[in-house]
Formats: sequence, C-alpha cells, structure tokens
Amino acid sequence: MARKTKPIRSDIAWSTPDHIEVRGRSLPDELLGKISLGDMAWLLIVGRNPTPQESVMFNAIAVTLVEHGITPSALAARLTYAGAPESIQAAVAAGLCGLGSVFVGSTEGTAKMLYEALPPGTKGADLPKIARELVAGYRERGQIVPGLGHPLHKPIDPRAPRLFAIAEENGFAGAYVQLERLICAEAERASGKMLPINATGAIGAICCELGLPWKIVRGVGVFARAIGLVGHILEEGKSPMAVEIWQRVEEEASAHLRPNGG
Amino acid sequence: MARKTKPIRSDIAWSTPDHIEVRGRSLPDELLGKISLGDMAWLLIVGRNPTPQESVMFNAIAVTLVEHGITPSALAARLTYAGAPESIQAAVAAGLCGLGSVFVGSTEGTAKMLYEALPPGTKGADLPKIARELVAGYRERGQIVPGLGHPLHKPIDPRAPRLFAIAEENGFAGAYVQLERLICAEAERASGKMLPINATGAIGAICCELGLPWKIVRGVGVFARAIGLVGHILEEGKSPMAVEIWQRVEEEASAHLRPNGG
Amino acid sequence: MARKTKPIRSDIAWSTPDHIEVRGRSLPDELLGKISLGDMAWLLIVGRNPTPQESVMFNAIAVTLVEHGITPSALAARLTYAGAPESIQAAVAAGLCGLGSVFVGSTEGTAKMLYEALPPGTKGADLPKIARELVAGYRERGQIVPGLGHPLHKPIDPRAPRLFAIAEENGFAGAYVQLERLICAEAERASGKMLPINATGAIGAICCELGLPWKIVRGVGVFARAIGLVGHILEEGKSPMAVEIWQRVEEEASAHLRPNGG
Amino acid sequence: MARKTKPIRSDIAWSTPDHIEVRGRSLPDELLGKISLGDMAWLLIVGRNPTPQESVMFNAIAVTLVEHGITPSALAARLTYAGAPESIQAAVAAGLCGLGSVFVGSTEGTAKMLYEALPPGTKGADLPKIARELVAGYRERGQIVPGLGHPLHKPIDPRAPRLFAIAEENGFAGAYVQLERLICAEAERASGKMLPINATGAIGAICCELGLPWKIVRGVGVFARAIGLVGHILEEGKSPMAVEIWQRVEEEASAHLRPNGG
Repeated sequence: MARKTKPIRSDIAWSTPDHIEVRGRSLPDELLGKISLGDMAWLLIVGRNPTPQESVMFNAIAVTLVEHGITPSALAARLTYAGAPESIQAAVAAGLCGLGSVFVGSTEGTAKMLYEALPPGTKGADLPKIARELVAGYRERGQIVPGLGHPLHKPIDPRAPRLFAIAEENGFAGAYVQLERLICAEAERASGKMLPINATGAIGAICCELGLPWKIVRGVGVFARAIGLVGHILEEGKSPMAVEIWQRVEEEASAHLRPNGG
Repeated sequence: MARKTKPIRSDIAWSTPDHIEVRGRSLPDELLGKISLGDMAWLLIVGRNPTPQESVMFNAIAVTLVEHGITPSALAARLTYAGAPESIQAAVAAGLCGLGSVFVGSTEGTAKMLYEALPPGTKGADLPKIARELVAGYRERGQIVPGLGHPLHKPIDPRAPRLFAIAEENGFAGAYVQLERLICAEAERASGKMLPINATGAIGAICCELGLPWKIVRGVGVFARAIGLVGHILEEGKSPMAVEIWQRVEEEASAHLRPNGG
Repeated sequence: MARKTKPIRSDIAWSTPDHIEVRGRSLPDELLGKISLGDMAWLLIVGRNPTPQESVMFNAIAVTLVEHGITPSALAARLTYAGAPESIQAAVAAGLCGLGSVFVGSTEGTAKMLYEALPPGTKGADLPKIARELVAGYRERGQIVPGLGHPLHKPIDPRAPRLFAIAEENGFAGAYVQLERLICAEAERASGKMLPINATGAIGAICCELGLPWKIVRGVGVFARAIGLVGHILEEGKSPMAVEIWQRVEEEASAHLRPNGG
Repeated sequence: MARKTKPIRSDIAWSTPDHIEVRGRSLPDELLGKISLGDMAWLLIVGRNPTPQESVMFNAIAVTLVEHGITPSALAARLTYAGAPESIQAAVAAGLCGLGSVFVGSTEGTAKMLYEALPPGTKGADLPKIARELVAGYRERGQIVPGLGHPLHKPIDPRAPRLFAIAEENGFAGAYVQLERLICAEAERASGKMLPINATGAIGAICCELGLPWKIVRGVGVFARAIGLVGHILEEGKSPMAVEIWQRVEEEASAHLRPNGG
C-alpha cells in the first residue's frame, strides 16, 4: 500500500463563514441580483461572463431544450413522482436518466462530429469537400449522421432555422454552421431523402461556434430539461396522469395472459 | 375489469410538424432569442412571463442554489461520472438524488411552514404572536425550525441579507419575509443560540412572497443545482478527483480489517 | 479551519492483491459457489449466515417483492431505456427512484409501527389492547394504518396468507405477526371496511420477527425490485412498448391544445 | 394524426384480485418459499427455472458482483443518503448510475466480444486462430481487450480461477471459457504485460456458456450491486462517513482559492 497520494483540487468555488465565491466572483455581492440563471450556467462552464451576444445565443439554446411536451423523460418523471411524491429530486433524476444516445444526446454527437471534421483553429478548409467525405464515411459504415431528420418535424424542424437566424444576428454563423448545412445538403443528395437539420443538429453546430467542449454539450440539454421536468411534476401534482397510464398499460399488456382475456 | 377510463391531459406544450407551442407561446417565434433560461423556468411554473421585478428576484433565488463548491451532491456526481463517463445525464441524476430533507429540501420546509402559519390572503395578522406560537410549537415537539442556522456560515449566512435586499428593492419584502425574520428572532431568544436565517430560509420566505406553491420550491433548487453539477462534471473530466477520493477512503476505511493494518 | 478529522471506517469488506474478504469470509473460497444470492444479502445486512429457517423466510420475502407486472416503476425503467439503451444501469436506477412512500415503502411503515408499538424484548404485552389503542390513534390523527388494504387484491391479498404460512412453518409467527393480525381485525371493526393485510403489511411484520432494523426493510424491496426491473428492460429490448406509450399519451394529453383538436 | 396504434404486450406477469402469476407460475403457490432470490432472477431472465448446475453457477456470478468494499458506487450511495435519508431507494439509484463502461460494464463487453467472435451454434471453430485475430484487431485499433487486467488484483484476480473452477464442476467450461483463456494468453504474449482474466472477464465468458444475452449481462451486475449498496447504506446510517469525506475534500480542494490558504 505504498500508494502516493495525489492532490485534490477544484477551481469552481470556495466558502468561508462570511464569504462565498464562485468562479472568482462573490456570490452575494457580484452575482445575486446581477446575473441571470442562463448566464450563471455560462459562467460556470466557460469561466467568465458571456458577452451580450453569447448570452442571447446560449440562453436560446438552453431554452430550446427545456420542454417538448409529453416525452419519455417527462413520463418517467411523472411515474416516479406517483410512487415517491416526497422526493421530487428523485423524480427529476429519473427523468434525466433517459437523456441518452437516442434523444438529447444527439447534440453531443453533432458537436463531436463537427469538431473532428474541422478542428478548432483550422484555416482555409474546403468545407464542401469535408462534407462530402464525411457523409460518404457515414454511409460506408452504415451509420446515421447525427443531427439530421426528425420523426415529427417534417419537412423542417421549426427550431433549427430560428436558432440559425439568432446565430446570424449575433455573429455565430461561422464555419461550423456552414459545414453543418453542407453536411445536411450532401446527406439529402446522397440518400435521396428529406433530412433537414433538427434542433439538436443546429444546437450542436452552434455550440461549436461558441467554443463549448463537445463533452459538455449534452450537459446543457440535461440542465435545461431538468427545468422542464419540474414543470411536469408540478402539473402531475395538480392533475395527475401517471396512475391512469399505469392502469391502462397494465390491463392491455397482460390481457393475453389472463384467463378469459382479463 | 370494468374500470372506467379517465382522460389524460397536459396543458404545458404541444407540437405539430411545423409548430411547437409551450404555455401558449410559439417556441421558435415567441420564446427563442427572446426569453432567458430563468424566465423560461418561471413561465413553465407560473404559466405567464415574469414582471421585471419577478424576473430579478426569481433569477437571484435560482442563482443562489446553483453552486456551493464541493458538496455531497457534487461528489456523488463526480464519483458516478468516473464509472460511467458515457452517461453524464446519469451523473447529474445521481447528484440530484441527494437534494432531500437535509440540504436543499429546507427551502420547501420554510415555505410550507410560512404558508401554514399565514395562509395566502390573510389580512391583519398579528405576526409577532404567530412567530411566538410557531416557535413554541416546534420547541414543544422537539423539532428544528427549518431555514435557520448554518454549520459554516456564522454568525450570518451572507446570501440571506443580500436576497432580502433584492426582495426589498423589488417589492417582495412583505408579510412572509417579515414573519420569517420574527421567527428567527424568536427562535434565537427562546433557545439562547445564534440561529441566523440561512439561504434556504430566505428563499423559502421569498418564494411565498412570489406566490410559488410550496410543493415546487424544492424543484427550483433541483434544476438550479443541475447546472452546478454539469460544471463539476466538466471539471472532473479535465482534472479528476473521484478516483483519488475512492482510493484514499478505501485504504483508510478498511485498514483495521487488513492483516498487518494494510 | 481547525476542524478535527474524524476516522473513516467500514466493516463490510477489504481486499489485497490476492484476497477479497466480505463480512469476515473469503469471497472466492468461502462464498462463491457456496452461498445463494438471497443468503448473501442476509449476510451483508445481518453480518452472519442465515439459519435454514431464516433463509427460507428471507428469500420468500425478497421473492415477493421482485415482480408485480407492469408497475409505475417498470414503466419508468422502460421509458428511460428507450432514451438511453446504452445505460441499463440508469434505467434500473430510474425505476428504483419511485419506490417511495406510496408503493414499496409501506413495508417500512409497518415495521416501524410494530417496533414502536412493541419494542424488541417486551415481555407479557397485552397485544389486543396495543392494537386497539394503535388503531384509535391512527383514526384520531386521520392517518391510514400502513400495510392494510389493496386496490386490486380484494378481499384477500394472496401473498399475505402464504407468507404467514411460511412464517408459521419456520418459527417466525410470533408476537409481531400476531399484533399485525390484531391491528387488521381492529381496523376492519372500527372502520366497517374490508382492510386485509397486504403483502407489504405481512412483510413488515415478518421483518420484525426476523429482527431486521426497520430502516432497512425498504431496502429489501429496493434490491428485489432491481431484479424485476432488469427483467422488464430485457423484454423492452425485445418487444418494446415505451415508444407506443409515449406516442399515445402525447396525442391524447395535448389534443385539446391543438388547432382542430389535433 | 393518422398514426396506427400498435399493441402493448408483456409476458412477464399478471394479476387478478386473487391471483398473481409470474412467468407462468403462481407467485404465492409455486414460488414463495420454494424458490431462492437468485433462482427467481434466472426465472425472470430466462423464462424457466434453472437446473441445479445453472443455479450454482448463476448465483456464484451474482454473488461475485454484490460487494467489493468501498467503491465509487458505494460512496455515491452513501453521499446521497446523507442528503436524503428519507429516500434510500434514491441512494441505491445514485450508486447504480455509475455502473457504466468503466467498472461493472466490462462483463457486458467481454460477453459481446465472445459472442461476436464465436456465434452461438458454431461447430469446429479454430479457437487459437480466433483469439490471435481478435487480439490483433484490438491492438490495431488501439483498443483495450475487455475483461483482462486489474489495477489491484495482480498477478491474479482471485475471483476468476474460482469462478472457472465452479464452471468446470458444473459443466460450463466450454468453448467460450476456452476462448477467453486463449485471448488472455495471446494478449499477454502480444503485449508482454501481465493481463490476467479479471472477475468481469470470467463472468462475461461464463454468461456466454449459460446462453444469457449479452445485453443483459450488465443487468446481473446491476441488481447484484443493488444488494451491496443496501448494505453500505445500512452501515452509513449506523456509522457514517459521508459528511467527513465531504468536509475533508471540500477543505483540500479549495484551499488554494482561499485567502491565506484557508
């Protein structure tokens, strides 16, 4: 057991009896009443306050991901709340556990794909060629290009053009947004299918413009959706649906097993 | 199985292929780029946009709860991330699961206590008398008054006076804030101990001023802390501490069981 | 920061490069191939191997709680799996989060109630009197006696008499089981309603006979149900229902908000 | 909204007021008191009772994964319990969330690798050749072969030879176990390093012998560890370490940020 101890260190925050500092700012004196929740999230992730343009863009991205009505996540949170109404934190947690590869996770996939295709700092890249080769590679490997297509929002996911317009207005419609659009066009050409950029694709591209690490892009979706889930739990407390869903599904799912079909 | 089916209904949001509406507003046209993340949370919970005063106050409350350095929640999230770095949503979820009765939950306790002592709409209440009786009741039952005292922040939790100052500036220093202060003074008098209002006590009182249902007050802490946890996970990815903590604790905790003390 | 460090210590297990010991037994040499999973759970909780009678009884209790078809927990796990199929651990976690006060938690409530009414070691107690006073107290406070009645299993929960028969055969039908039966009879008499002992009531009483601490009784339900949830996730992977449930609920829940009713 | 409704169906269990059936067996009459917890898990996953040999083997696998002392998962569960002692289900859930790719997940990786290298039903395969090509492929792609090597248990993970001995005794030391051993030898030869089969590697191989789907192999680790976590939470309730860990880490991690080093 001659293990050498390594230091433990965090640069996020510290406290003394009369002081609390977060990212080098006094929480009571410099942040409370002076910074909005979305800008606080930026400060934590990036380590400095956002510019006005970054603030608009980052808040728009986060707001996009807060709420999309009844989703599998919202249902998981409501069903959990029905069993443990004393622990709304656990109901939110249950809802968040499903934000994986299938739903919100594709924001991350898009950002990772774009950063790999166009490493930060690249100058004079041939974007159409990158897009062609990237789509060809995905098709060869039989993989789906992340961030394109939507089961419901066809032919256009209405969130994507709006996010790109906000990016344009605020100076974030650079090479990554352009590349994402070329990838979309190439994927549609090569497949002959309608594959519009969806909200997670637009967000992935804009997160690259903002310089956010791809590893944290899914995290923005996670905290944004935590807000939406609190809204669903509040509604579940007032006008519940979980027990009715449970009973309907239980009856239908096992009808074939019951004597006399139930 | 002659169960009567009940309707299932949610008023939060709906979508068609070209439209997404949240709380009666078009998400792309009326919300993206126009509402901040904190105000979006208010809209979801309350059902209407906040006034400028409500926005400052509500964002300040949420910002207070985002981050408090290395907490048990932050550690649980980091330790979970070390085992499942592919699922940051699950690391955030693990961190949230601990926001129960001991830590963030006391915001809820304060709000519930104040609403019960002073039901919304009460006119001409004798606040000092209510405070005296309330504290006497807690002492008789051997219970701790929620929202008072702090293990570290003594004699004053620096977040509380700042939150009350913001409440004052924005017109939210009404009867609930006054009652909370009277309860604090009475608890200190009766116990002979220093029991300053802590951040969760101030937040509980101000949430009553804002008219938020007590059942959702803990929820504000939950989504705010989700932001902080994403910050901790990002840092854990860059400069990890989880494995070192695990190894140190493992060695110390089982040293007495090992032959030759390890 | 003159905080005095406290020791950190665990008595459960330890390892060296060539040895792993759990509760004082070599995991490879004394446990693997020699102890069943249920008995291992007992060993961990109680600190010694179960007697043959304790083994039958404890396994029966745990088996009771593994599975009850489509429950809110099973649905939460399935909906989570649909979003994050790469993280089945998070799907199980989401399902467990709902095992709170409403469902499995009532085992704990019964055990706590019985231990408080009849502290371990009590001799010569007047059980009928205790039952009468206990039920009267619950009725006065307007509370529901835990462990009685079931929405579906009427007039009898078929698990309860079977569990009591196993208790009888194995020597665990002592004062706590007798008291639980008296409480049931008294609750039915006082209310004029059919309130049979349900599975969680029987389990709570038998856990007292086994001497398990009430704080851990819910834990038995939690790990037992984790097994059931793995079964549901396996089935969801082969013949899914989560997406269909989501789509049906989404359509119905928001139909009233859509133009032209959807 | 002309979506066609799909049927919802589960084959696991059903109930009527006086009957509960799981996998075609009456829960009260055919399972309670007659099946152990580990065998119940097998019944749920496989759909039939295990043979005596399958029972010994499957229980041994599950028992292996129950407990490994203070792990990141156990710490996450304990830290969560410290904040929400009223929700032990959420503390177990938090602990499970970290059973991802780094720790318990490697059982799944091994089983998947072996099934792909040797599809069920293959006759007369050249196992040494398969092992050589498989290891060469991993080395070419710069990937780690799952199930080999252990940071602590060197030169041998004592659980692996014991699990293989139980497999031998019970007729499960077939082609998958043989292939796993050849892969280990080849990986050691090619790398020049000591890479013994670890517990998760042995379990992955034996799960293939048992015919368990690779997708569910991690699930066995998840429910087994749920038992271990309940044990840790019980101990945390009696002799806590979470608060001490938190305070030590908090002090050390932020010392460099504090005025005067804290």
